[in-house]
Amino acid sequence: MKQTLRDLAEKLGCSLLGDGSITVTSVSSLQSATSGSLVFVEDAQYLDAVLRSSAAAVIAGDFAAGHKASKPLLISPQPRLIFARAAKLLRDPDRNREIHSTAIVPASAKIGKNVDIGPRASLGERVRIGDETTIGPGSAIGNDTIIGSHCRLDANVIIYPGTTLGDRIVVQAGAVLGGEGFGYVRDSQTGHYEQFPQIGCLVIEDDVEIGANSTIDRGALDETRIRRGTKIDNLVHIGHNVQIGQDVVIAAQTGLSGSVTIEDNVIMGGQVGIADHVRVEAGAILGAQSGIPTKKIIRGKGVVFWGTPARPIREYLKELAFLSRSAKKDR
Amino acid sequence: MKQTLRDLAEKLGCSLLGDGSITVTSVSSLQSATSGSLVFVEDAQYLDAVLRSSAAAVIAGDFAAGHKASKPLLISPQPRLIFARAAKLLRDPDRNREIHSTAIVPASAKIGKNVDIGPRASLGERVRIGDETTIGPGSAIGNDTIIGSHCRLDANVIIYPGTTLGDRIVVQAGAVLGGEGFGYVRDSQTGHYEQFPQIGCLVIEDDVEIGANSTIDRGALDETRIRRGTKIDNLVHIGHNVQIGQDVVIAAQTGLSGSVTIEDNVIMGGQVGIADHVRVEAGAILGAQSGIPTKKIIRGKGVVFWGTPARPIREYLKELAFLSRSAKKDR
Amino acid sequence: MKQTLRDLAEKLGCSLLGDGSITVTSVSSLQSATSGSLVFVEDAQYLDAVLRSSAAAVIAGDFAAGHKASKPLLISPQPRLIFARAAKLLRDPDRNREIHSTAIVPASAKIGKNVDIGPRASLGERVRIGDETTIGPGSAIGNDTIIGSHCRLDANVIIYPGTTLGDRIVVQAGAVLGGEGFGYVRDSQTGHYEQFPQIGCLVIEDDVEIGANSTIDRGALDETRIRRGTKIDNLVHIGHNVQIGQDVVIAAQTGLSGSVTIEDNVIMGGQVGIADHVRVEAGAILGAQSGIPTKKIIRGKGVVFWGTPARPIREYLKELAFLSRSAKKDR
Repeated sequence: MKQTLRDLAEKLGCSLLGDGSITVTSVSSLQSATSGSLVFVEDAQYLDAVLRSSAAAVIAGDFAAGHKASKPLLISPQPRLIFARAAKLLRDPDRNREIHSTAIVPASAKIGKNVDIGPRASLGERVRIGDETTIGPGSAIGNDTIIGSHCRLDANVIIYPGTTLGDRIVVQAGAVLGGEGFGYVRDSQTGHYEQFPQIGCLVIEDDVEIGANSTIDRGALDETRIRRGTKIDNLVHIGHNVQIGQDVVIAAQTGLSGSVTIEDNVIMGGQVGIADHVRVEAGAILGAQSGIPTKKIIRGKGVVFWGTPARPIREYLKELAFLSRSAKKDR
Repeated sequence: MKQTLRDLAEKLGCSLLGDGSITVTSVSSLQSATSGSLVFVEDAQYLDAVLRSSAAAVIAGDFAAGHKASKPLLISPQPRLIFARAAKLLRDPDRNREIHSTAIVPASAKIGKNVDIGPRASLGERVRIGDETTIGPGSAIGNDTIIGSHCRLDANVIIYPGTTLGDRIVVQAGAVLGGEGFGYVRDSQTGHYEQFPQIGCLVIEDDVEIGANSTIDRGALDETRIRRGTKIDNLVHIGHNVQIGQDVVIAAQTGLSGSVTIEDNVIMGGQVGIADHVRVEAGAILGAQSGIPTKKIIRGKGVVFWGTPARPIREYLKELAFLSRSAKKDR
Repeated sequence: MKQTLRDLAEKLGCSLLGDGSITVTSVSSLQSATSGSLVFVEDAQYLDAVLRSSAAAVIAGDFAAGHKASKPLLISPQPRLIFARAAKLLRDPDRNREIHSTAIVPASAKIGKNVDIGPRASLGERVRIGDETTIGPGSAIGNDTIIGSHCRLDANVIIYPGTTLGDRIVVQAGAVLGGEGFGYVRDSQTGHYEQFPQIGCLVIEDDVEIGANSTIDRGALDETRIRRGTKIDNLVHIGHNVQIGQDVVIAAQTGLSGSVTIEDNVIMGGQVGIADHVRVEAGAILGAQSGIPTKKIIRGKGVVFWGTPARPIREYLKELAFLSRSAKKDR
């Protein structure tokens, strides 16, 4: 969607240097920039290269404010953030929103304004969906599920009954929300396993985003909860009764066992494994593939942990160095 | 579903202490108990706390048999197991069962009594489905698949042709059963890979449960088989030709390569990785994230193995302690 | 599909020893061979056992050329490869190909000859599909996607808009292609994450095969690309901007973070984890569960790497041996 730089600067709260009447049509990388592109630069040393690109205009950090530039500039202390927001402003408006004729929407469902429901999606009884929300093709939304406004569920998303989603939530294709957790009781007489009740619920708060084919189980007796602003990558597993704080980041293929607590602002790399009843306190950082044994408490805002069992990365690297050196000396 | 304590005691084979005429409507956790709740306690030291909760009645271990309790008690040597069974008895009966008008059921399919097939499910030719089985919305069941009675397949479950499922099997949403295994032959002239035939089958025996988005491949030439009572969590991968015994437990994101054998009563934590042709003998326990290299045999009923390559946990913990101590002493 | 040995020998370019008029109906393993089976043997020491099986005929290596055998032989320097190709020749022809009446195909889509589209599949606007391609039930193909000829997409495959697939590509059930990558910008004022634009594309070249429930993200601003002949197992994650070379093999549950480069002929075991901006150079082999930290370069054609952080397996095994020995000596 074509916009003038002046309009963008105003909407984005940036200062504008140069010709504000030129128009841009999309954000782009440096190498694929064209005459309609808006690009960004965070580091003063790359400013000249960016100005030599084919882009129409540049979002740059404060360092560029005094610069006599060959292209118009939008100046911001957070150029990458402004670039992300510009991308949203330049996005083409959605196609006409509609409830597709093949979607299954029972009379008991309560659908907001301007909701889009794709082909072959099926809604259960008493489902509620807020305004401007999109439900992708082939999705199946269980009975009594509540979905807020401005959400986007992509194709073949499955939501089990009784799940609650806030506003502005994104769920990518194939994710399964609110399934039964993995809890069994072994009969000491027969040795057979019987399911422990998995009758709790799943609550996902505003602005959470969930990647493709991830699975998040509902609570066994009570709830699983993902708090505001948390971002979850593809193929992540989150077990029953897990509590995740605000603004947590969880990279792909990480797994959280039952009854884990993750506090606010924790960051987890990919393929991290967390055993049951672990608590990761606010602001800790877990390196990729690290593992936390059952019931441990991980503490340390801004401290990076690595390895299995995870320890502060400084210790772990020292251990690795000692091991490598010793094995080489060894005959 | 409301029941009197006396009825429950009888169905569950428990002794009843106190007023059997009171009714309960559901199981619950201690903290969310209400006046219709049935809760449980396994440990004598928590009995007083449980009796102070809002619950209507308590399932307790034998330790409570002589107790002068303020609430009615159901006494059993396995209170957690009885709690799980009570949950089933208290579950509301299913909605009316039906074959949804949008389900695709060819004339050659043979459907049992009281089968429920959800919206947009599609069955292949000659599929057979036993009594009281539920097929979720959007599921696709391949030609010549046989599904037993009292099974529950949730939404968007995919079953490839020729798969056989026993009775009382649960498959959660998005699981893929009977796909082609990962086997290729490299042409030494061109360096290109060509698929080795993946034309075997997958057999899943009674009472197996499979988590959301898990994948289980069929045999290459012969069969992959999961034996009675085995429980599999979410996002688990099981390769071609794998043989899994009875009452095996496999936690989330674990992966079994081709031609692995897992004997009865093995327990695996999450994110365990098992290379091809490994044999894990009966009753071994593999800690989370442990890894077993190709063709190894793991032996030891009740022995916990950990690490990659997995070794008895006592050895592994000793190694970790040595390494930590040595690295600290190291300058 | 029944064929004479003579016909097979000719189509497969093998020399035939013995009676070429006998017919075979399928390939099989040794233990399940019947009188219509074709089996193979790669190792001279097993030839006698194979000849004693119930199979009708045997594909054998050059070692068998002078042998006075009790069954007809097809001789090739690559018997396993010939067996794989024979399996394809003996496969029954597909059922009648059709576009199912419940499939959603907009007028703007361009569909080749002899295309099969399963029940409840939905195609977006302007989708193009080449000749002889199969789209499974419940699949959802986004707007402007291009799919080549002779491809096979199984049930519930999701393709996001603007994805390009070459010819002879196989995508197993539940895989998600072209989803949004995991990239966020943190607002330093609020601490909230906002999505970095994920508006690039995904290109998959000829002869690539992708396992069930795997997820491959599109580029953030530019492209993610999987080159010719690469084979990807189940539950694999491939992040945005990743570049994968030709004839790469990636086993199950492996994860590649954003902006990773994998050169030609690399082999990765299962559950390998590769952090962002890593480069794995041509022909390297990564053992199962190994992990490569951010920005590393892995170099060494034919060299096996193992562990986290991955090092040459010889070094790693030496370290493990030193550690085990030292811990045992330690009191």
